[in-house]
Amino acid sequence: MKEYMQQLAQQARAAATEMSRAETAAKDQALLAIADAIDAAADTLKAENQKDLQAGRDNGLDAAMLDRLELNDARIAGMSEGLRQIAALQDPIGEISGLAYRPSGLQIGKMRVPLGVIGIIYESRPNVTADAAGLCLKSGNATILRGGSEAIHSNKAVAKCIQQGLTEAGLPAEAVQVVETTDRAAVGELITSSDTVDVIIPRGGKSLIERISREATVPVIKHLDGICHVYIDAEADLQKASDIAFNSKTHRYGVCNAMETLLVHESVASAYLPEMAQRFADKGVELRGCDKTCEVIDCNTATDEDWDTEYLAAILSIKVVTDIDQAMAHINRYGSHHTDTIVSENYTLARRFLREVDSSSVMVNASTRFADGFEYGLGAEIGISTDKLHARGPVGLEGLTSLKYIVLGDGQIRE
Amino acid sequence: MKEYMQQLAQQARAAATEMSRAETAAKDQALLAIADAIDAAADTLKAENQKDLQAGRDNGLDAAMLDRLELNDARIAGMSEGLRQIAALQDPIGEISGLAYRPSGLQIGKMRVPLGVIGIIYESRPNVTADAAGLCLKSGNATILRGGSEAIHSNKAVAKCIQQGLTEAGLPAEAVQVVETTDRAAVGELITSSDTVDVIIPRGGKSLIERISREATVPVIKHLDGICHVYIDAEADLQKASDIAFNSKTHRYGVCNAMETLLVHESVASAYLPEMAQRFADKGVELRGCDKTCEVIDCNTATDEDWDTEYLAAILSIKVVTDIDQAMAHINRYGSHHTDTIVSENYTLARRFLREVDSSSVMVNASTRFADGFEYGLGAEIGISTDKLHARGPVGLEGLTSLKYIVLGDGQIRE
Repeated sequence: MKEYMQQLAQQARAAATEMSRAETAAKDQALLAIADAIDAAADTLKAENQKDLQAGRDNGLDAAMLDRLELNDARIAGMSEGLRQIAALQDPIGEISGLAYRPSGLQIGKMRVPLGVIGIIYESRPNVTADAAGLCLKSGNATILRGGSEAIHSNKAVAKCIQQGLTEAGLPAEAVQVVETTDRAAVGELITSSDTVDVIIPRGGKSLIERISREATVPVIKHLDGICHVYIDAEADLQKASDIAFNSKTHRYGVCNAMETLLVHESVASAYLPEMAQRFADKGVELRGCDKTCEVIDCNTATDEDWDTEYLAAILSIKVVTDIDQAMAHINRYGSHHTDTIVSENYTLARRFLREVDSSSVMVNASTRFADGFEYGLGAEIGISTDKLHARGPVGLEGLTSLKYIVLGDGQIRE
Repeated sequence: MKEYMQQLAQQARAAATEMSRAETAAKDQALLAIADAIDAAADTLKAENQKDLQAGRDNGLDAAMLDRLELNDARIAGMSEGLRQIAALQDPIGEISGLAYRPSGLQIGKMRVPLGVIGIIYESRPNVTADAAGLCLKSGNATILRGGSEAIHSNKAVAKCIQQGLTEAGLPAEAVQVVETTDRAAVGELITSSDTVDVIIPRGGKSLIERISREATVPVIKHLDGICHVYIDAEADLQKASDIAFNSKTHRYGVCNAMETLLVHESVASAYLPEMAQRFADKGVELRGCDKTCEVIDCNTATDEDWDTEYLAAILSIKVVTDIDQAMAHINRYGSHHTDTIVSENYTLARRFLREVDSSSVMVNASTRFADGFEYGLGAEIGISTDKLHARGPVGLEGLTSLKYIVLGDGQIRE
């Protein structure tokens, strides 16, 4: 297994050098050819996927997991459409910025370059195979994809389409490789191959990501949890406050950018909370409030654990605060530095909130649900990073690249 | 010890929150006050430094190490002058870029923010204490400095000046803390405090940095070695080629951006190498060449190990290559991805070299010695990163920051 993984990594390294030089047209051609191959192989993909689904049922996977595992016509069309969208994005590689003359007469600037070899570790959803491969391909990287063992037949079938498209475009098939062993030790090998792998991107549940972060010697771009807040300020427009809070919580429950805790300034609590509580109750959202909240509305009592919890469900914790400082202290203490919003018409407080809240997305008068690569104009995203280093927030093509300095001279030497 | 380090880290975390909000004027005032305090304490600094030097001599430190350890008048003036220069730099924090309207009506952009708590681990040179503290302070971070035990008295004395300046400017003294224990376990504790420390920057020998990279769970911005190349192309201007190679090797030997290997196109080897070899010989540089080199000039034979070696000395390896592809393959295979130069008048080859060489600085017709934060206009540098993630090449204030997304709305919700 160790030898097999090392071979994959070596092949990826060699392919990465070729990919870093690949012309934009060749990369786009490959993306379109992969999309066509996926469309053409729809029946095969569904047949291979059936093997995984059958094994999943035999192994007692729950309904949610089986749903994520399924490749139906809509998801297959989604994969190919996603690849065509990536082909239409601007190529980030080779872009030069800041090139300016220095007193030495040298022109110095930065050029955007691929990271190299990217290892992606994910669970159940086989459509990630195509999405992740497409983004890494466009950004000139080589990719090693390690999907869950429960999706192995589906992933191999998608990989076949990818390699067919790469070959058609004259690019190395090893630019995207799917790990074909289900041996769990393969993950351990991948995340410690710091000589050959440049970065690991884990996608999946929190326990998977925590384990990988702990054990990896290769740098990790990761997304942990999303404990997002909406703070209703004393000077909030209460109609906006109601719509934003409702949308942030109920637009979708199981997503990382859903609100989990609502913070309300004490001066508007009695004007705002009863109507808001009714709106949530009509939607079937369970409310858990602090003591002050429970004085204003009828709800369960929140414990300290609630402030720390990413429900991903129709549950909301509510806390009444005395001012913006208490709100921001709560967010920075209990939040996961993902996405937090203030609802306020006050210029000075909005300005402070933007600067002082330490989260990957900080918003004024907008639903937390907008924290998303597509909404931000990235075209596509490989995930949302809750790290501070390298990439923070939604990660698109640019997050899969680095910058090197370029220096243009005419014989300059240092005196 | 563990408790002590945890206390430092907690204090740093709290200070980091204050520092992230600190106004530019307060940070600059602190930098100037620290500079004044260092100047005023020159005699104390020298006296404390004498204790370290005496202990160093007693413990048999070599002359180079004792030299690095020394704080004389020039170095003390250098520290305070460096801090005044940092005060004069533009504050990177809070800068907003790319703020543009999206179809949703939201304005979305990025704001530059501090990383948080930065741990710096370094050896012998006590002036690093002031340099590193100054850069981290200006960029709104809190810093934990862990210098070598051989410099403990000097470092504590510098730290006292720093904390005096912070207090005078109304900033938390805990924004810069020097680890006062020489227990080596303190380093292990610091580099695994991923809950409280955001990034580790090690400065020192390769073995120190490798050990820290291996054991750290906190992300590391690191500089390993500098095996830099100059490639003399077939279409090089041979006068520029001679000056650039000579300057890259001999301007200073013990620096990471000095050339260690000279690559020469075979078609110019006989025209270029004899005169160049004479120039190096006059300077006392030992030459080690490949077989083809040895046919043209009189020199020692290079082994495979030479291509892999950062001499940091008056030694140069030389290899004759058949074309730019062989040159770039050599650089990408044996180099350390630090700094590499092509000397050529050919537009197409220069353009290819810039794109295809995978190094933190790639140059055309310039001495490798220019790879430096000051020459690049960063104002100051905390080091040169040979990593690809986050910061690559010379790291100035910007490398000590991150970007968060900011979203300005008017009540937008997602449909």
